Amino acid sequence: MATEAIPAKAREVRLAAHVTDVVTKANFDVVKAPVREPGDGEVVVRYDYLQVTAVMQDLMREDADLPMPTYKVGEPLWGFAVGKVVKSNSPDLKVGDDVEGMNGWNEYAVGPAQSFWKLDPTMFPTPQHYLTQGPTAYHGIVDIAQVKEGDTVFVSGAAGGVGSLAGQIAKCMGAKTVIGSAGSQKKIDYLVNELGFDAAFNYKKGPIVDQLRKLAPEGIDVFFDVVGGETFEAAIQAAAQDARFALCGALSGQVGNGDGAFPRLDIMHSIVRQIQIRPFATYHTPDQIWAWQSHFSQWLKEGKFVFPHTVVEGGLGKAPQALIDLLRGKHSGNLLVKLT
Amino acid sequence: MATEAIPAKAREVRLAAHVTDVVTKANFDVVKAPVREPGDGEVVVRYDYLQVTAVMQDLMREDADLPMPTYKVGEPLWGFAVGKVVKSNSPDLKVGDDVEGMNGWNEYAVGPAQSFWKLDPTMFPTPQHYLTQGPTAYHGIVDIAQVKEGDTVFVSGAAGGVGSLAGQIAKCMGAKTVIGSAGSQKKIDYLVNELGFDAAFNYKKGPIVDQLRKLAPEGIDVFFDVVGGETFEAAIQAAAQDARFALCGALSGQVGNGDGAFPRLDIMHSIVRQIQIRPFATYHTPDQIWAWQSHFSQWLKEGKFVFPHTVVEGGLGKAPQALIDLLRGKHSGNLLVKLT
Repeated sequence: MATEAIPAKAREVRLAAHVTDVVTKANFDVVKAPVREPGDGEVVVRYDYLQVTAVMQDLMREDADLPMPTYKVGEPLWGFAVGKVVKSNSPDLKVGDDVEGMNGWNEYAVGPAQSFWKLDPTMFPTPQHYLTQGPTAYHGIVDIAQVKEGDTVFVSGAAGGVGSLAGQIAKCMGAKTVIGSAGSQKKIDYLVNELGFDAAFNYKKGPIVDQLRKLAPEGIDVFFDVVGGETFEAAIQAAAQDARFALCGALSGQVGNGDGAFPRLDIMHSIVRQIQIRPFATYHTPDQIWAWQSHFSQWLKEGKFVFPHTVVEGGLGKAPQALIDLLRGKHSGNLLVKLT
Repeated sequence: MATEAIPAKAREVRLAAHVTDVVTKANFDVVKAPVREPGDGEVVVRYDYLQVTAVMQDLMREDADLPMPTYKVGEPLWGFAVGKVVKSNSPDLKVGDDVEGMNGWNEYAVGPAQSFWKLDPTMFPTPQHYLTQGPTAYHGIVDIAQVKEGDTVFVSGAAGGVGSLAGQIAKCMGAKTVIGSAGSQKKIDYLVNELGFDAAFNYKKGPIVDQLRKLAPEGIDVFFDVVGGETFEAAIQAAAQDARFALCGALSGQVGNGDGAFPRLDIMHSIVRQIQIRPFATYHTPDQIWAWQSHFSQWLKEGKFVFPHTVVEGGLGKAPQALIDLLRGKHSGNLLVKLT
């Protein structure tokens, strides 16, 4: 394959200042930096799609207490991205190979071949299918909440990157009823008409507990939560006996006044219902990634699953605004920025 | 054995009015009622000891949401008690047998022989040893929290009926360090000097989280909670990675302003630490009761265990005040009222 021209300089996004309240464009520096020559065993990758996720706002905080490396002021942000090898000094990767890398807030990445994962072009319709929050959704639904045949499952933030997968996974695991919550009629329609949710409601239209009880009169067996706050408190009240709660995030606290990350736990009610509450983080071990990818591939081929995603066009310079919009609830599904 | 005289009338305690705030003596009627003649297959039992527990206050509420029958106005309260058969028209029980019954707010009970459990006099030093909250403590420590060799275990309300057993059970299961919290220096001394806790602190003396971090600098692996409120919130902050929380009650809400039963759950911190939170109720199945009793008997014989209890003397008329004092934190261990 002919080697394509590699520019001398390319754009990257650096952290300009730590986030104290919510992220704004002032927290980012979009700069042009030299693309260095690859050394022996190294490759140059041109990234095509960057994945943007809500946790990135937290990684921009100085005091973030998270199980992954946070961003440093003056340095490029890290993030998962897919692209193509455009120059190779390694026998392990050749020009034209599809790869995934972790330092995706860059148009070009240069590094050892083993710092990239070679993608299997037969597994998914596109390389972008590798950019999902699937390991988190799969681990939460299958290992933590242990969704089984006949369960009534409630997924909050259901139109988001994790929730849009979690609800579909629950359905594939045999859930009888999957209910989602989201913040607009457009998202409600998307969940029911495109992703196969059995029901969905707008959490802004009336008390959540009332909407939940109406849709799940016999109670919810599983709650997959990315929101926290009032949604968590309502799910406790609407829980069936021996319900399992998989807590994945507290987005209402990340974008609101902070209380959403500290909901009240009704202890006595939880005791009577014996609700198992399992907050969890996904460490993306090879096992976790493979469990997700093999099922995702299979379910897509069987026509049971939709790849829920939004693509923001316009290049890397659009990535900061994409993150800001994501936190404001503007997008549905897994959010990708098209870099090329 | 010679039949002892059975009085024509005996005292029983009835619910005078539902509890709305906290229990007072006005909620009880202590009355004299006829002791009826036993029918065919029935026995008369003279109760010697009644067990009094915190949950009784909740059973006195009209709107109690609990997995056991609540008390009805005008009817005698139920509660576990031990005593002796003083008259028998059944081949299954003979005069002099030690038995346990459930309708213990009575001096005498008359009913079918099979409504009483015959006690094994070789199992424990006294019949009162059958009156513990052991099934709850054992199930919580062993099945729910799964305490194992080397764990650092924190028990709240540790001088109470459940906590005083839970801490000792944790130690018998191999816990490296068992820490208790209580509300007075006398109780702290009792926990460390008599029950074998490794450390204890007074929750009224400074922020709980600070005291906990000082005693468990590497974090707590297991939290057995009967208190809720600030104690629960502190335990979340002081939890080690993958900590297991067994939630058994929210006593701080039962006796305080109610907030204690609704503490804040720090979702993001819980996610990072992957804390498993398991509120649980114990249904006192035969399996649960046997698991506790067989271990309790064994541990007592091995000299590893103390029967933590307080006896209030003076007869059934003292039972209402005993419950009120229990909720005010006056007593240690399992609370028994001596009826005879």
